[in-house]
Amino acid sequence: MKNAVILGATGYTGAEAVRLISGHPKINIIGLVGNTSTGVTYESLYPNFHNIDLPIISSIKDIDWTNVDVIFSCLPHGASQEVISSIYDSVDTIIDLSADFRLKDPDLYQYLYGEKHIFPDYLKKSIYGLTEFNRKKLLGAKLVACPGCYPTCSLLGLLPALESSSIDLDNIIIDAKSGASGTGRKASKSLHFSEISDGCHAYSIANHRHAPEIEQTIENITGRKVKVSFTPHLIPMNRGMVATSYVKLADGVTYQDLRQIYQDRFKNEPFVVLENQGISPHSRHIKGSNICKIALFEDRRPGWVIIISVIDNLTKGSAGQAIQNYNLTQGWAETLGLINISMFP
Amino acid sequence: MKNAVILGATGYTGAEAVRLISGHPKINIIGLVGNTSTGVTYESLYPNFHNIDLPIISSIKDIDWTNVDVIFSCLPHGASQEVISSIYDSVDTIIDLSADFRLKDPDLYQYLYGEKHIFPDYLKKSIYGLTEFNRKKLLGAKLVACPGCYPTCSLLGLLPALESSSIDLDNIIIDAKSGASGTGRKASKSLHFSEISDGCHAYSIANHRHAPEIEQTIENITGRKVKVSFTPHLIPMNRGMVATSYVKLADGVTYQDLRQIYQDRFKNEPFVVLENQGISPHSRHIKGSNICKIALFEDRRPGWVIIISVIDNLTKGSAGQAIQNYNLTQGWAETLGLINISMFP
Amino acid sequence: MKNAVILGATGYTGAEAVRLISGHPKINIIGLVGNTSTGVTYESLYPNFHNIDLPIISSIKDIDWTNVDVIFSCLPHGASQEVISSIYDSVDTIIDLSADFRLKDPDLYQYLYGEKHIFPDYLKKSIYGLTEFNRKKLLGAKLVACPGCYPTCSLLGLLPALESSSIDLDNIIIDAKSGASGTGRKASKSLHFSEISDGCHAYSIANHRHAPEIEQTIENITGRKVKVSFTPHLIPMNRGMVATSYVKLADGVTYQDLRQIYQDRFKNEPFVVLENQGISPHSRHIKGSNICKIALFEDRRPGWVIIISVIDNLTKGSAGQAIQNYNLTQGWAETLGLINISMFP
Amino acid sequence: MKNAVILGATGYTGAEAVRLISGHPKINIIGLVGNTSTGVTYESLYPNFHNIDLPIISSIKDIDWTNVDVIFSCLPHGASQEVISSIYDSVDTIIDLSADFRLKDPDLYQYLYGEKHIFPDYLKKSIYGLTEFNRKKLLGAKLVACPGCYPTCSLLGLLPALESSSIDLDNIIIDAKSGASGTGRKASKSLHFSEISDGCHAYSIANHRHAPEIEQTIENITGRKVKVSFTPHLIPMNRGMVATSYVKLADGVTYQDLRQIYQDRFKNEPFVVLENQGISPHSRHIKGSNICKIALFEDRRPGWVIIISVIDNLTKGSAGQAIQNYNLTQGWAETLGLINISMFP
Repeated sequence: MKNAVILGATGYTGAEAVRLISGHPKINIIGLVGNTSTGVTYESLYPNFHNIDLPIISSIKDIDWTNVDVIFSCLPHGASQEVISSIYDSVDTIIDLSADFRLKDPDLYQYLYGEKHIFPDYLKKSIYGLTEFNRKKLLGAKLVACPGCYPTCSLLGLLPALESSSIDLDNIIIDAKSGASGTGRKASKSLHFSEISDGCHAYSIANHRHAPEIEQTIENITGRKVKVSFTPHLIPMNRGMVATSYVKLADGVTYQDLRQIYQDRFKNEPFVVLENQGISPHSRHIKGSNICKIALFEDRRPGWVIIISVIDNLTKGSAGQAIQNYNLTQGWAETLGLINISMFP
Repeated sequence: MKNAVILGATGYTGAEAVRLISGHPKINIIGLVGNTSTGVTYESLYPNFHNIDLPIISSIKDIDWTNVDVIFSCLPHGASQEVISSIYDSVDTIIDLSADFRLKDPDLYQYLYGEKHIFPDYLKKSIYGLTEFNRKKLLGAKLVACPGCYPTCSLLGLLPALESSSIDLDNIIIDAKSGASGTGRKASKSLHFSEISDGCHAYSIANHRHAPEIEQTIENITGRKVKVSFTPHLIPMNRGMVATSYVKLADGVTYQDLRQIYQDRFKNEPFVVLENQGISPHSRHIKGSNICKIALFEDRRPGWVIIISVIDNLTKGSAGQAIQNYNLTQGWAETLGLINISMFP
Repeated sequence: MKNAVILGATGYTGAEAVRLISGHPKINIIGLVGNTSTGVTYESLYPNFHNIDLPIISSIKDIDWTNVDVIFSCLPHGASQEVISSIYDSVDTIIDLSADFRLKDPDLYQYLYGEKHIFPDYLKKSIYGLTEFNRKKLLGAKLVACPGCYPTCSLLGLLPALESSSIDLDNIIIDAKSGASGTGRKASKSLHFSEISDGCHAYSIANHRHAPEIEQTIENITGRKVKVSFTPHLIPMNRGMVATSYVKLADGVTYQDLRQIYQDRFKNEPFVVLENQGISPHSRHIKGSNICKIALFEDRRPGWVIIISVIDNLTKGSAGQAIQNYNLTQGWAETLGLINISMFP
Repeated sequence: MKNAVILGATGYTGAEAVRLISGHPKINIIGLVGNTSTGVTYESLYPNFHNIDLPIISSIKDIDWTNVDVIFSCLPHGASQEVISSIYDSVDTIIDLSADFRLKDPDLYQYLYGEKHIFPDYLKKSIYGLTEFNRKKLLGAKLVACPGCYPTCSLLGLLPALESSSIDLDNIIIDAKSGASGTGRKASKSLHFSEISDGCHAYSIANHRHAPEIEQTIENITGRKVKVSFTPHLIPMNRGMVATSYVKLADGVTYQDLRQIYQDRFKNEPFVVLENQGISPHSRHIKGSNICKIALFEDRRPGWVIIISVIDNLTKGSAGQAIQNYNLTQGWAETLGLINISMFP
């Protein structure tokens, strides 16, 4: 058993980490850190955790690091690097769910997140935890930077096409739709029920911080610098994410070729499902699961393909992938603690 | 005052037509036809119509056509042409909200809708009622084929770019999101609250009947045959539609050029609003209104632009535009009966 | 034309007041006060107000009171009395939508709202604006205290029974359900979309500030001090309120007697609808309307009746009734500016 | 391991049974019966069951009963008794989730459900599976009639008060709120997303079939015939149920007495939680769990208490309690296969 502390445990991502780790056979939660709610039970913040044996929420300074094997940091960016820099040597493994160690370039980080990175040497050392891409680098990794939810959903949909050079890198258009839990458990007028329900809108258009993260990973996969079109939309649903990607096939590649490439690439992936031809996946059918479902459709425009990928933003898009990554750092079965049946309706 | 009969009055589109026409100063509803619910009050089907003076729902055969000036047909495709062919000479004006007279090519109609068109001569005679495009042809028109909701939303977003040859016609990608009222008031397992709420999915991918309608209209605007990418998504909201279109600027055209073209083109349009730069319109802010809001964003990929257009699928996407068109056939002010404040929240 | 200033115009209640007054033929909005958003257009806060001619949002100190005939105060309690006390003599009429002038007893006010009332003399002078009860006192009234949404919905359902002494005052149980707009446009974790959607809960059980307000009004109607059971629930909907009241008939009164009493009492009320026997009203069918629908059902328990009343919490439950009251203070038709068709779906 | 066949597996209740039994350590699903969808995979109907090893959906006539130990019947009433009568002797245990064996009086059954019961002798033999009430009778039971969702939620909230004669049986008022999954996966206009979302309404007022079921059970607990007030409401949420019950304390019983009675009664119940004083449970915090949360509040009216009970209608209200009951028939730990963390948000 490994002893885990969850930082930022009071947000939605933290709650999903607690939910999943509570059912993990080899991880024991020994600390829940949430600076604004110390001293209270977790159940008082998340009444769904009834009768689950969990530590009282504590302050970071009250953690005794001698027994801690791993931290899962669900802190916001900025806060996460601050804590991680201070306890880096005290723990074996750090699974960071924030944006703090995803980007390799400190200048890009500063540009996007508005603050100088205080721990830039570790940007290079971190392993980008898009599991299906970086699986081999995860064994023994000390610092894993888990991807954002949008990059996870989008990149899994594109991965075989990118790895196999099957598409034109200058023509990648990602139209993404996310549930409201992705905004975090924040007090904000714009997150009021009445501001989100019964309507739809795009936001951070051509300007979302996850776009450069997607581009960096595409560069890491293909060796080429690219720009992608990326437009997120907020949908009146709690969990779930759909990325509809429009891609142009490389010369000589057909839709059926691409389908075969996807089948081959994903056939052994435990958490990626290629839908049968003609089936469009619903985000509501994978809630709470670590599964990513992917569908390929031939576009009306010759030479183009529509790729649909759906995940649960809090699970595969965050805490589920984090655990998947931690399993790999330890050499455990990748699926440990992550097999469940999604609940519908 | 003109006397109107509304066919297919019992569906959501019909109900929106009744709501809007009830407030129209020059149209009087003298017949509500709904074959499955004859003999009952409209309020019994739509309790929101409390205390509104409306005819009892009747069968088509009970209509006395001598006093009817106009019919608004909210029947499903197929049923609509059947009725229209039988009463064509009895009325002055026919505003068809179904798909029956939108397409000019009877073979395409048959291919898409699965039945031979019974009234093909009139396909050519009908005026396609995308008001902002075909306004001049509407005065005196006898048969107006109102566009589908998706074509309305998508085409309004593209119209100035198409008219001005500012974009590459081979690179038009439309990702659309619709509320559930667009499905109609049907009994269907797949429309059950629990099948639509708390999730999102694409449907009819690369295969939706509105794609050829969009293409036909682009051809009519530009003179060129095109194929567009069109992917609709169902969103857990009642009303509203968002079309996010990705377009490539023609050589020599800049984003600011395009912005100027849009400003000029729409500045006198009563129902089209170009948002200030940086503002993303929400579908929830135009519910019940005939307004289409449009925003232009420069893409991360040089030379591409993201166009967002939002409408209420039942209003501008259907019954509102139908009335706007009828106003024009009569030479009335286009906005008659259509000025209201959208209700939010 | 009367010139109106709307205080607290930036909340949901304020927005509903602006929406309704914008369509009122005898009221002109000359000031919109919202201290935290001064200097911006109303459309920037509420994009549904596109192209509506409205003043820029200003600070209270920038209002020139010489031309103001009426203020509609949508401020929170406490803030409302503060402003009203300072401008009381500057305007002809004050329609207060807050809780500040509803209760007649300053001690009860202080107990419930936690602050000493600064303007207690005016508690007595204010007219409690439950229109259907106090209609006769409204003509010429200077200060109208509009009821809370829950009291409006509950009391309208009970009014004929109370006035006619048809029910046992010791057995009044009100189970109420409200949409989320009733919470106001506040930044709060507990109002986050994900905290309200896809679930239901009771709150302020036996402890809600509207219960003493209901009791005070029952005392004013019947002359007897009472305690009622009142339990509000938050429902994942934007607008709408349902009060399900359980009452015991007085000795000798039958269900059919009560039905007759309700029919007689409401037959001339422009905004109260008694449903036909067996029909249960939906809140979704009166959204945006000033109508209250009421249904009476004979309980399984002999001698008890179930009364269901539904309103739109922002309209009849707040801004609509406020305008109805103002119409009456001026001797205008009560329905002026308030006749519309509710939008569904 | 016991071999189970699930009848009516294609509805929401059936799907919840499949979900829960799939994770049960001692039950093996060997048949899924759904007459309208035979020959297809369960995943094709419920895509959330990805990669779960389940039988193809078959017709009842294709079941080989020799190896079947238990059937869980999720069929509608009427259909359930028909199948059960035909295979009664072929299986060891029958857990019926329909209404067919809940009522002891065949005349009442016929009155409420409109058909003569074809198997009336077995009405008496069935054990009413309100587990917390009838636990001792379940060991070895052959035919268990699982309660309806409303009776489960309501009666658990009342159970200690009824058993201890702490309340006046003539003053029990139950105001219940249910999510839409309780309606079943049916094609119906009235279940369309737009007919349920963004609104609330009561239905089957004073007339719901679950009221007599509640009354029968109260009689079985207390020995006295009673009538209760019971009013269900449909709420725009998928899962979840809240019963708000208003009860009058018996002479000499105080609120604190009742609280103590509840604490004592429930302290060893694995699935019933008495909330700390002042806490109101949310249905959204127990989704997918077999837990019933109960809260007691002192009413404003002296001598009355408000009891709030919440369950997931598909779990404790249906399939979860069914498994809890089956566990007890076999002498297994009651909680087997039913311990999980509810997912929120």
